[in-house]
Amino acid sequence: MDALSAGPKGVVLTERQRIAWLRLIRSDNIGPATFRDLINHFGSAEAALAALPELSARGGATRAIRIASEGEAHRELEAAHRFGARFVGIGEPDYPQALKQIDGAPPLLAVKGTLAAAKRPAVGIVGSRNASIAGAKFAAMVARDCGRAGYTVVSGLARGIDTSAHRASLDTGTIAALAGGLDQPYPPENIGLLEEITGGNGLAVSEMPFGWEPRARDFPRRNRLIAGIGLGLVVIEAAARSGSLITARLAGEFGRLVFAVPGSPLDPRCHGTNGLLKDGASIVTAPADVVEALAPLAQFDLFPSSMAEEPAPDGKPMSMPPGDSDRNRIIDALGPTPVEIDDVIRHTGLSASAVYLILLELDISGRLHRHQGGLVSLSD
Amino acid sequence: MDALSAGPKGVVLTERQRIAWLRLIRSDNIGPATFRDLINHFGSAEAALAALPELSARGGATRAIRIASEGEAHRELEAAHRFGARFVGIGEPDYPQALKQIDGAPPLLAVKGTLAAAKRPAVGIVGSRNASIAGAKFAAMVARDCGRAGYTVVSGLARGIDTSAHRASLDTGTIAALAGGLDQPYPPENIGLLEEITGGNGLAVSEMPFGWEPRARDFPRRNRLIAGIGLGLVVIEAAARSGSLITARLAGEFGRLVFAVPGSPLDPRCHGTNGLLKDGASIVTAPADVVEALAPLAQFDLFPSSMAEEPAPDGKPMSMPPGDSDRNRIIDALGPTPVEIDDVIRHTGLSASAVYLILLELDISGRLHRHQGGLVSLSD
Repeated sequence: MDALSAGPKGVVLTERQRIAWLRLIRSDNIGPATFRDLINHFGSAEAALAALPELSARGGATRAIRIASEGEAHRELEAAHRFGARFVGIGEPDYPQALKQIDGAPPLLAVKGTLAAAKRPAVGIVGSRNASIAGAKFAAMVARDCGRAGYTVVSGLARGIDTSAHRASLDTGTIAALAGGLDQPYPPENIGLLEEITGGNGLAVSEMPFGWEPRARDFPRRNRLIAGIGLGLVVIEAAARSGSLITARLAGEFGRLVFAVPGSPLDPRCHGTNGLLKDGASIVTAPADVVEALAPLAQFDLFPSSMAEEPAPDGKPMSMPPGDSDRNRIIDALGPTPVEIDDVIRHTGLSASAVYLILLELDISGRLHRHQGGLVSLSD
Repeated sequence: MDALSAGPKGVVLTERQRIAWLRLIRSDNIGPATFRDLINHFGSAEAALAALPELSARGGATRAIRIASEGEAHRELEAAHRFGARFVGIGEPDYPQALKQIDGAPPLLAVKGTLAAAKRPAVGIVGSRNASIAGAKFAAMVARDCGRAGYTVVSGLARGIDTSAHRASLDTGTIAALAGGLDQPYPPENIGLLEEITGGNGLAVSEMPFGWEPRARDFPRRNRLIAGIGLGLVVIEAAARSGSLITARLAGEFGRLVFAVPGSPLDPRCHGTNGLLKDGASIVTAPADVVEALAPLAQFDLFPSSMAEEPAPDGKPMSMPPGDSDRNRIIDALGPTPVEIDDVIRHTGLSASAVYLILLELDISGRLHRHQGGLVSLSD
């Protein structure tokens, strides 16, 4: 049993495995889904790393993909240790329980602070950066009462609602999910708050490399961590088309409870939250609404890894690479419209393991796009 | 066919009938439900008036009930005419369409103003007397857009939301439902607004006698008119346990669409409206939400009278009064717990007409209580 198919208690990675995992996830064209498929196919990150050049070439890459070296991985691990941080793998006991379950969960999380915060059930609290006084106060009330009820509060360290939610749960435990590297917090005015979090009962988490400055596109990606770590997400004040609504959409896709706080239709800060209510989010008018709705979920410890597939029975990769004719059938079957992998298998009549391997090749060569819900499409 | 079982166009009462109706509804122990049963049983208000003393005595009244005299009814009609008002019976064409349908609709409404306002589909808009600026503004937006879409706006002439809703629909048509007599408007500062309503495209309505000063208990009774006249009810800002919530509850019981505008959980003026949203009211963040939801209802002209029962086939009252043994069986079967009349019929094995007549006797003698949904109980 490897770490990816570990039971609820998890299995601790060896240092050699951790280096290989870090190299694999930091290599070109390897996202969380590709990482999972590689581990499941080749049985280990080390075997996957060895196979990458050939996979990439067979998939039709025009030039060799960049594979992170052992030296780079060592340097990142050392930087993390100097910073007081470390890396937790998805099958390990310290990995946030609920996050394991989501599509595209990060294989490795850089974490700094009190790991106990990641082991309790959590609730996300997010909202406007330019929150109203009432909104900030209500966020603090919800965070405080959820904290007292035993939940870790997860948020994004942003100004406004996020700040208010973190502050109110400093004592009981809070997780700040960062869009950049752990050593690149944003916004600058919340660096002090982050230090209070990681120096106290809280935790900072990031899937990005040390030194990574967050760009605009990294925030939606980070939002899926907030949505995935919590059993539920409370949105307090959110304008139309705001980042909080992305988090809410992701939370809904992950099957999380989505809560929204009502507000005046004439306050633009409430357009997003009122819209969530129209779309079926649970209305929150008191912290107890959240605590009571989460209670039935929190009593179960029911988050099996979504990467529970076993590697090939002999623990070794399929020795015979698929032939060109099989590869061409799959390329012909794919197009710019996302389709389910099961449909590719049915349509081509190839074995599932051949299809998965060819898709991996195309993926690693940069030609495959992976979409929410496990759909795939081919680049033009 | 009498006025109570009239078709959609309605039947106009003769002046003699109107006097008899007014006498009957102004007599002791005669509410709308008893009025309906009396007309259905005796075929006319005049025949019912003639039967009242005997019914009351048979029902066990300890003293004769007060029956409004012809002189009193004439004087009230004259007062109404001098005031520029008149009385509209429930089967008449000018009676508000949707109101006919509710349990306990008033048999006669005193009305003043433009009757066209009562013939269009209507929407109720109510809320806090101490409305916020935003609440008052939103009420005006909803009233204006509903008015433009062809709806008459009905409200209660109160300060705050009601005032705002009436003002914004002065041009398109608005109905003020009063808790006291038409000549006793409340609050005093809205007398000018009421004059604008009745002097323009609007209408004032009341079921109470001329000269009746409204007491606290008259307001919930009046609220059922607002709930009943509208196809839907929009609640904009309402504190917990406020009158607007009574109106909303009644609107729900009448099968009306209930809308509520969200607001901050920290604003006590929004506790009632947010509570309605929790209980399943439709959320309103823009006037179009109301207009679009009402449209499918407003295209039908589907409000048959709930008093559609025909009188006894020969048009005359049952000539044989029920005997004491039958009456005692019913008295024994009733108690302080409200029960359905059908259950009384089944339990006693008596004919439906005998049961209805005995219940009428008990009702008129002041011993029967009638409850929402047609249930009855006996006083201790």
